[in-house]
Amino acid sequence: MAAAFSCPVFLPSTFSYNGNRYHGRIKIKINATSSTKVKTLNEIAGAGKGSSSLATSTEIGHLSQEQIRQRIPTKKQLVDPYRQGLIIERGVGYRQTVVVRSYEVGPYKTATLESLLNLFQETALNHVWMSGLLSNGFGATHGMVRNNLIWVVSRMQVQVDHYPIWGEVLEIDTWVGASGKNGMRRDWLIRSQATGITYARATSTWVMMNEKTRRLSKMPEEVRDEISPWFIEKRAINEDVPEKIVKLDDNARYVNSDLKPKRSDLDMNHHVNNVKYVRWMLETIPDKFLESHQLSGIVLEYRRECGSSDRVQSLCQPDEDETLTNGVEQSLLKNMILTPGIMEGNGYLGPLDVKSYGYTHLLQIKGDSKNEEIVRGRTRWRKKLSTLPYSS
Amino acid sequence: MAAAFSCPVFLPSTFSYNGNRYHGRIKIKINATSSTKVKTLNEIAGAGKGSSSLATSTEIGHLSQEQIRQRIPTKKQLVDPYRQGLIIERGVGYRQTVVVRSYEVGPYKTATLESLLNLFQETALNHVWMSGLLSNGFGATHGMVRNNLIWVVSRMQVQVDHYPIWGEVLEIDTWVGASGKNGMRRDWLIRSQATGITYARATSTWVMMNEKTRRLSKMPEEVRDEISPWFIEKRAINEDVPEKIVKLDDNARYVNSDLKPKRSDLDMNHHVNNVKYVRWMLETIPDKFLESHQLSGIVLEYRRECGSSDRVQSLCQPDEDETLTNGVEQSLLKNMILTPGIMEGNGYLGPLDVKSYGYTHLLQIKGDSKNEEIVRGRTRWRKKLSTLPYSS
Repeated sequence: MAAAFSCPVFLPSTFSYNGNRYHGRIKIKINATSSTKVKTLNEIAGAGKGSSSLATSTEIGHLSQEQIRQRIPTKKQLVDPYRQGLIIERGVGYRQTVVVRSYEVGPYKTATLESLLNLFQETALNHVWMSGLLSNGFGATHGMVRNNLIWVVSRMQVQVDHYPIWGEVLEIDTWVGASGKNGMRRDWLIRSQATGITYARATSTWVMMNEKTRRLSKMPEEVRDEISPWFIEKRAINEDVPEKIVKLDDNARYVNSDLKPKRSDLDMNHHVNNVKYVRWMLETIPDKFLESHQLSGIVLEYRRECGSSDRVQSLCQPDEDETLTNGVEQSLLKNMILTPGIMEGNGYLGPLDVKSYGYTHLLQIKGDSKNEEIVRGRTRWRKKLSTLPYSS
Repeated sequence: MAAAFSCPVFLPSTFSYNGNRYHGRIKIKINATSSTKVKTLNEIAGAGKGSSSLATSTEIGHLSQEQIRQRIPTKKQLVDPYRQGLIIERGVGYRQTVVVRSYEVGPYKTATLESLLNLFQETALNHVWMSGLLSNGFGATHGMVRNNLIWVVSRMQVQVDHYPIWGEVLEIDTWVGASGKNGMRRDWLIRSQATGITYARATSTWVMMNEKTRRLSKMPEEVRDEISPWFIEKRAINEDVPEKIVKLDDNARYVNSDLKPKRSDLDMNHHVNNVKYVRWMLETIPDKFLESHQLSGIVLEYRRECGSSDRVQSLCQPDEDETLTNGVEQSLLKNMILTPGIMEGNGYLGPLDVKSYGYTHLLQIKGDSKNEEIVRGRTRWRKKLSTLPYSS
């Protein structure tokens, strides 16, 4: 089993299919700044259990010790007892059972959106991990390594029909599929283990970037041959045409300026974590609204990544006319609210008895001459039915 | 098996054994503002599987649905397959196997201190959960409920000999013991599952507070009879006399003012999370120091809790003379660095080849007339041996 796909962590990117240069400063691999090094790491991962023949340099010896501690599989695994993971869907999908932990819930004992995003990232990486081709955490197929290609995420959409509560046992399914000719989709479903009811669904889009030129790339044939056996047609969210998110400007109703990434906001890629972006977006919405509403969906369009020294501005704008939002903005509404998952929601949340509110978001880096977009977003909200714990 | 102990979440407190009133605004139970209600919840938890006889009010019916989703055990369990938990130590200790997740590590792929604190909280609660007497998450013994008593944490000490890395499988042991006549100790050990090497150890001290009068309380005999069967003598950290932490004043070298708790910083008790305190403390230390040093130990002394509307100031002061710190401040140094755990550390970290640096911390609420202490802290640091990932 040689085929695998690369790192599905959340790496925002500026990109364009017109061949414009990528403006971010993505560094996917901590240990690998050149393709030669990447190849070495992959060779280690592919070398089976005996790493002694490769342990000629200090660095490789060091990596072997990591691998012992991490127990990175060098072959495809079907079951991961420690992570409670399981390969499903005839060998290409991944399911993990998780329990909502005490620190993953907010004031109402329901899992926070941030916790869900964390679990999406975790299960995606564990899926790759199970493939047996994860080298130092960011495996790429051999074809991708040969072509200096890495994955970058361009879009993420999450829809939460019902928030899991503290202590609840969840099953998270994740899988990949084709996205156009040159991209990949990764989807997730979160279900209650006890009832089988779907609580949340998510989809993300990934494109290939040349690590050296920082340009987006088409998917080479050899890479397509490697990864396409992993693709599943099934979709977590049925969207016809992705909604275009309007770019906000200085006239936005709410602006939060001078946001500074802190050390604790950096992930293992030394980038501001995806979850932090969402936090910045949501913190810009007035408290009064947040207290009485619950997020039902979010769409993120990544433009470029944010480094530790950037100063960030968060803008947001409520939809002008709530009636219009509920009646006319059909396409988005359908994506966010009227999907089959809710229709089959067994009464947890009917599609018609919920009034929906929308916000448009923008995170940007304040520059001296011009601002640079980090991420555009759309959030969708429903009124809380009650302020009691456990209510949605 | 009727005896259990109460909620070991991190609830900071102002307290004194002289009978002074408690000045905080602790609300331990979201659903329970009176002792009557607490009793009702406990009765539900103690009522076995048939809750129909109690489901007379909407609220109780609501709670039953939670309990179905949470699967709260109403009897003592010996194994929790979902949490990978296990009762050990002849029925009174708890062990949980966890894997370090991708979002629990920082830029160097090592678990953050915050992640370790989260895991301590989680395993403590799961230990209580396994006891079968967790009602809505904050179980108290019947004797405590009869006396309107709740637990509040007064002190926490963590010592990290070696940081676990992304993907590493850990075993976390936790247990409780007596602390003087009226208190309880909860300890933790984190071990590498692969090698058995101890990576971190922690201890915390809990006292009883009367929920109505907000005064600290002695432990009633009936409560002692209930909880003492759970006590183990074993200690994770051997400390003779807990070090007194000096109170910093406005002359402290580094001051970070006007820190504001955000919605996402609130835990399910609607308090600022313990982890946030630590973040505020550490963020006050200069970046330059943080980049080249790694935290090896922390002591926290809780004085009062912090609400969502408070404005917080973080002060910190490096130890004056580093040589002095290493040579003379024997008692603290012994606690933080020279414990048997490191002595037996199989070469991961020798006690003599590491220079240690100390900081004193204070978080306080800026008041108009006077400031109120939230928590005092001491942190201990060692120089990073390397900036490579995985190095300590």
